Amino acid sequence: MSLVIIGTVAFDALETPFGKTDKIVGGAATYIGLSASYSVKPVKIVAVVGDDFPQSDILLLQEHGVDTEGLQIKEGEKSFFWSGKYSNDLNSRETLVTELNVLADFDPVLPDSYQDCKYLMLGNLSPQVQRLVIQRLVNRPKLIVMDTMNFWMDIALEELKTTIEMVDVLSINDEEARQLSGEHSLVKAANVIMAMGPKYLIIKKGEHGALLFHRKGNTNHVFYAPALPLEEVFDPTGAGDTFAGGFIGHLAATDDISFENMKRAVVHGSAMASFCVEKFGTERLLNLSQEEIEAREQLFADLVAVQPAMAVAQG
Amino acid sequence: MSLVIIGTVAFDALETPFGKTDKIVGGAATYIGLSASYSVKPVKIVAVVGDDFPQSDILLLQEHGVDTEGLQIKEGEKSFFWSGKYSNDLNSRETLVTELNVLADFDPVLPDSYQDCKYLMLGNLSPQVQRLVIQRLVNRPKLIVMDTMNFWMDIALEELKTTIEMVDVLSINDEEARQLSGEHSLVKAANVIMAMGPKYLIIKKGEHGALLFHRKGNTNHVFYAPALPLEEVFDPTGAGDTFAGGFIGHLAATDDISFENMKRAVVHGSAMASFCVEKFGTERLLNLSQEEIEAREQLFADLVAVQPAMAVAQG
Repeated sequence: MSLVIIGTVAFDALETPFGKTDKIVGGAATYIGLSASYSVKPVKIVAVVGDDFPQSDILLLQEHGVDTEGLQIKEGEKSFFWSGKYSNDLNSRETLVTELNVLADFDPVLPDSYQDCKYLMLGNLSPQVQRLVIQRLVNRPKLIVMDTMNFWMDIALEELKTTIEMVDVLSINDEEARQLSGEHSLVKAANVIMAMGPKYLIIKKGEHGALLFHRKGNTNHVFYAPALPLEEVFDPTGAGDTFAGGFIGHLAATDDISFENMKRAVVHGSAMASFCVEKFGTERLLNLSQEEIEAREQLFADLVAVQPAMAVAQG
Repeated sequence: MSLVIIGTVAFDALETPFGKTDKIVGGAATYIGLSASYSVKPVKIVAVVGDDFPQSDILLLQEHGVDTEGLQIKEGEKSFFWSGKYSNDLNSRETLVTELNVLADFDPVLPDSYQDCKYLMLGNLSPQVQRLVIQRLVNRPKLIVMDTMNFWMDIALEELKTTIEMVDVLSINDEEARQLSGEHSLVKAANVIMAMGPKYLIIKKGEHGALLFHRKGNTNHVFYAPALPLEEVFDPTGAGDTFAGGFIGHLAATDDISFENMKRAVVHGSAMASFCVEKFGTERLLNLSQEEIEAREQLFADLVAVQPAMAVAQG
């Protein structure tokens, strides 16, 4: 049940209505890895940083069960840096700074010890780099989950489609699903996207939850996991990656890729994401207990639970 | 379990990306009444039309179990008329024409036969008129549900708050909840609004479903009913009223206002609304079978159903 994750390990500087941070550790592989580590260990990451990245933060990842053998450290170079500012309602954000640095020519080298990969999570990166990882694995993983974003649809659509064709599960948000498919209806969008290759599609709708679609033969299955109505979202950074990490972590831990188990993985991922947004950056993901996670999953179950009526009088 | 509904019975002219209609029968009381009639009969409506309103349409309502004794017909006057055009994605609409006509000085007269009212649905109307109906009932109903809209928040906020204070359940959409409360977080908004009087609050989120909040003592309960992901929404007109009609119809039929039964009422209302949007105006609400309705409710249940894992291995 070896789990390999590719993505960024980076610095973020964040500004939300509740405050701002200096450079803190972020990046898709960081969030995905930490989130998945609550389900399965080790989590093997493939990523690149510069020599400005603190050894203490690499140790922190390792303490959480993240295998960093595939984390390249480029001497004399700087780590990827992103800075953004959220709107007052947290529904939009403005990019203030993007410094690609080591990411500009990232070559994802897989250590031999990663070749047992059974579950592969392609965090948001260029579709070419994502595809290289699939190609460099001697055996195709049992399940490949891919995250991406509108940026690649804008500048590298054909490359993106080539990679999408190779994966089992695609995870994108509602606006991205509309952009990728050209359809406004999410049901139609899902059909168009699943025809591109993936048998499963997750459409993330932020505060409105997530939809899981699956086409099997001529039958479409759909599952709706609501998001927990939260009193306060402190910092949405990394919520999508944390969701993805929880999703694939649960699948890798249970080694069960039935649609029924994917539903549970979506609920688990949603629960992990609901923790992530409670504090800045990865802070809330560093010290969760299994009891907290199970209690949160129970809240998700309670949220939609309807007891059948014992006897319903119909007029 | 007598159910009384107040609202408009009117003409609409609609334009959606799929076509346009001439003047067709619409109005909140029409949608609410037809929707509720699938749960309970009779549905007693209080409304006003002009003498331009076809007798055949009044008969159609009566055939569905709508008691029209409280429907005033004003000789020499014209019915309320609204015309609107929807955007291509159906998420917004532009009002083309609003002719108040008989609605301008609507005095909601309650026939004596309506005084047994146990369930009262206040469809969207001026908060003064809604309040008059409560005041004209000799005995306070067991449950009062109120619908309203941002228009009244803009022009009659204090009147609106006075009426809201008198009801048990308020039903509004997410943007209206934010406007009424001044809070962006729907959880905070719900707390502010329930502090205004209603013990229950329904926040309708359109394609994202509906939230039901309930404060009991110091404990808040919340229920999330997702909307069915639909391939095509043909005409959203009346969906909110159809939801409300299904909601109060189910409660009146079962005469059970427990939170658990309100959840079932929300699911039933959501199912009824999902039919409404499939065709223009009230068309789809005129010929539904109980089998169709039950099958639709089952789809809602299946959409969020997660089977517990038999044995989940945790890494």
